[in-house]
Order: sequence, then C-alpha cells, then structure tokens
Amino acid sequence: MNFDEIYSSKLALVEDALKKLMERHKECPPTLFKAMNYSLFAGGKRIRPVLLLSAHELVGGNVEESMALACGLEMIHTYSLIHDDLPAMDDDDLRRGMPTNHKVFGEGMAILAGDALLNLAYEVFLENAMKYPYKLERHVRAAFVIARAAGLHGMIGGQVADLEQEGKDVQPDMLYYIHTHKTGALIEAAVRAGAILEPIEGDVEDAVAKYGQKLGLAFQIVDDILDVTGDAASMGKNPSRDEARKKPLFQLCMAWGNRGVWHGT
Amino acid sequence: MNFDEIYSSKLALVEDALKKLMERHKECPPTLFKAMNYSLFAGGKRIRPVLLLSAHELVGGNVEESMALACGLEMIHTYSLIHDDLPAMDDDDLRRGMPTNHKVFGEGMAILAGDALLNLAYEVFLENAMKYPYKLERHVRAAFVIARAAGLHGMIGGQVADLEQEGKDVQPDMLYYIHTHKTGALIEAAVRAGAILEPIEGDVEDAVAKYGQKLGLAFQIVDDILDVTGDAASMGKNPSRDEARKKPLFQLCMAWGNRGVWHGT
Repeated sequence: MNFDEIYSSKLALVEDALKKLMERHKECPPTLFKAMNYSLFAGGKRIRPVLLLSAHELVGGNVEESMALACGLEMIHTYSLIHDDLPAMDDDDLRRGMPTNHKVFGEGMAILAGDALLNLAYEVFLENAMKYPYKLERHVRAAFVIARAAGLHGMIGGQVADLEQEGKDVQPDMLYYIHTHKTGALIEAAVRAGAILEPIEGDVEDAVAKYGQKLGLAFQIVDDILDVTGDAASMGKNPSRDEARKKPLFQLCMAWGNRGVWHGT
Repeated sequence: MNFDEIYSSKLALVEDALKKLMERHKECPPTLFKAMNYSLFAGGKRIRPVLLLSAHELVGGNVEESMALACGLEMIHTYSLIHDDLPAMDDDDLRRGMPTNHKVFGEGMAILAGDALLNLAYEVFLENAMKYPYKLERHVRAAFVIARAAGLHGMIGGQVADLEQEGKDVQPDMLYYIHTHKTGALIEAAVRAGAILEPIEGDVEDAVAKYGQKLGLAFQIVDDILDVTGDAASMGKNPSRDEARKKPLFQLCMAWGNRGVWHGT
C-alpha cells in the first residue's frame, strides 16, 4: 500500500470508532450532543489520531487497543478549535468550509460543547485504561502524556501566548514558543502516547517523540504559508487576518534553522 | 473536635495542598497562571475536596493519598464557575465578593484559564495515580467517577439544560434534572471517589453515594432560597436575575418530595 492508501485506511478506522464512541454517549441534552458532533465530524484530517495509531503499530501494537486514546486526542483537538474560533479569541466565522460552532449554536453552547469534548476525552481515556488491567500503567502514562501536552505547559500555554500577541509584532522566539506549544505539543504527544503503550527502549521513545516535534513544526510552517498564499475556498477557513503575523516566512525559517530544528538536534 | 474544627482543619489542608500544587505548575504564561490562581484562591468553601477527603478517611484511608483527587476536583469546580459566569452564559460580574474572572482578565483569558484548570485536574489525577502502582486501578476508577460526573452526562449536561431554560418557565422535572446534574453530580462524585480508594463493600459505596446525592440537593435548595432572600453583600455573588427561576420553593420541595428524595429511596 502507498502512503495515501495507508492513511485512508487509518482515517476510516478513526471515523468509524469516533461515530461508535459518540453513539454510546448520546444520553445528554440533544443540543449539546449536536454541537459536539457538528465540530467533531466537520471533515477533520484526523492527523493526530492517525499518528497515534501508526506510532502504536510501529512498535508492534494492535490499533484496537490504542483507538480510544486516538479518539480522545481528536476530541481534545476539536475542543481547542471550537474555543479558538470564539469571538473572544480568534473570532472566526469559518472552519473546514463550514460556519464555526458558535455561529451555529451560539457562544454559550459552543463553550460548553468544547468543555464537554475535553472532559469526554479523559472519561474515555480512563474508561479504556480499566479495560487493560495488565497494561494499566502504560495506558495511564499515555493519557498523562496527552494531558500534559494539552494543558497549561503545552497547547493552552501556546494559545494564551498567541492571544496575548494578537496585533503585536511577533518576535521569532515568541513565535517558536507559540508553534511548538499551540500545535507541536499535541502532535508530539500523539506519537509518544502511541509508542509507550508497548514495552520499548527509552531511545526509541525519544526518537519517535523527535519525529513528532519536527512534524509539528513542518505542519505549522505549511499552515503559515497558506495563511499568506491561501484563500478561504481552498483552505476551508479564513486566512489569518492578523497582518503582524504575516512577516516573511524566510525570517521564521531562519530563526528555526538557528535552533537546529532542521538538523535533528 | 466539633464539626467546625474538623471542617477548618480539612480546609487548611486543602488550601495548603492547592497552593503547593499550583506552585509546581507555574512554568506557563504568567497571565494564564494569574487568571487560574485568581479564581482558584477566591475564598471558595472547598466543600467538594473536604467531602472527598472525609469520605476517604471514613473508609480508613490516609488523606495524603486522596489529596490530589481533592485538589483536582476543586479545579474542575472552579473552571465550571469561570465559564458559567461568562457573558455568553450567566453573565455575572461578581463571584465570592470579587469581580468575576473575565471582568479582570478578559473573556478570552477567562475561557483559557477555565480550560487550563479542567485539563490540569486530569493531569494531576493521572500523575498522582502513577504514584500508587499497587492501587492504580482504584485511583483510575476514582478519577473516572469524577470525569463522568463532570461531563456531558453530569455537570455539563446540567449547565446546558440550565442555559437552554434561561428566561423560560422551568418545570419541576427539568429543575430536578438541572440540580441533580449541575450541582449534585460532582458532590456525589466527591464522596464516591474518596470511598472507592479503599477496599469497601458495594453497599458501603452505594450508601456513601446516596449521602452525596441528598447533600447535593440540600445544598442546591439552600442556594435557591438565598437566590430569593439573599443579597450580593451576604452571598458574595449577585442573586439570580432569572425571575422565572424564582417560583415558590414550596413547589420545588413538593416535586422532590414526590420523588421520595427525603425518604432515602
């Protein structure tokens, strides 16, 4: 199978598992359930869960065992998009070619739908961990890796820095912090969490995590380029309207280059 | 020791543990850290963590072991207050006698500070669980009980129902749902999570959980009475401005009475 075929098959597994998972949790206020599903099934690329499953497979794991972690990770990513799009944050009307969550369900419901997705991710992690009593410690550690990457020391830290830089002339150091935390942390956590479900050596874990770090940066650079060159029709979201962020990509890549991120250090 | 002395001693332990816990997590954007601490140390009564510690002690546990769960639970409670006070939700200016989080830090930061407290709670649960490898399953189950009570089937479900009833004539059935989910679920989870850290019989767990249920309802009734009779100075928050909610308490208590909640069923 080529890359596209492998990706598509993993993507299909994730879609199916997410649907079944949400179906098991439908006993809640109907509007909340609709709002959660609206963003969760808005055509995301599922990069993080596919990476988690692939990393697990790489070290000899069975994707069935890591699927709950993969689904929860996608819920965390989705909640972050819902909250990030709110008027008090990026104030975006469009996401994946559709009106953003708060545009459809209102701000209050969008906040709660995001909260519910974040909380459900951990409910799913904890419930799934109990299904593997003989590997419980590994599952708890994998969930912890994701929690750490999603929180104040990771993604939320990056979002706060991003929010505080709004409209300012962003320095390369700060942009590096924002990118490695807001986007990079969860991508790195995806591959690390998948790998540590099986007994591996510490250097394998480090190598896998380093791959995740580089991939996270590459991902963000493409996103930045699209913010300059793209349009809403091809991107499914409005290009960044923060003019100060559109400084020459050359400068950013140079700054990263100076940190050796292209040389495996 | 009398009740007040016992409560005060537990409260002091919780305050101290929360301070130390936050101190360990200060490596994040300073404004985020300030916003999280502002609401976490705004003089809350710490009912949920004190209940969790007490339930654990009741079944022979050492409060040191349950303290992380107790602190995380208070973080979850605090995040729910921050988000609940937002303009898109209850739009409250005052909480515990102080300006609400978004009034001080802005709406975007308040949303992120809430997100960060919710996420940190799970980070703390998972990290703490790994410290007790011989009791890992119990710690995972206790965290799961809290996650379930905090999410779409519990507190968030209740908040959504509350949001959707805003300005409507609330029926007793719906008010019962809102109270048992928005407030009751986390109080019940507090005592259940504390108790299941030790090996207990199923009927002891059920008895402890039932105590939590009744206490949650009693708590909410007092809160409802204060919403009719209280003022901002004595309550530290503005009484509910939702006139439709101020129907005779008699009717609500009758509705609960019909469900047998006062008779231990």
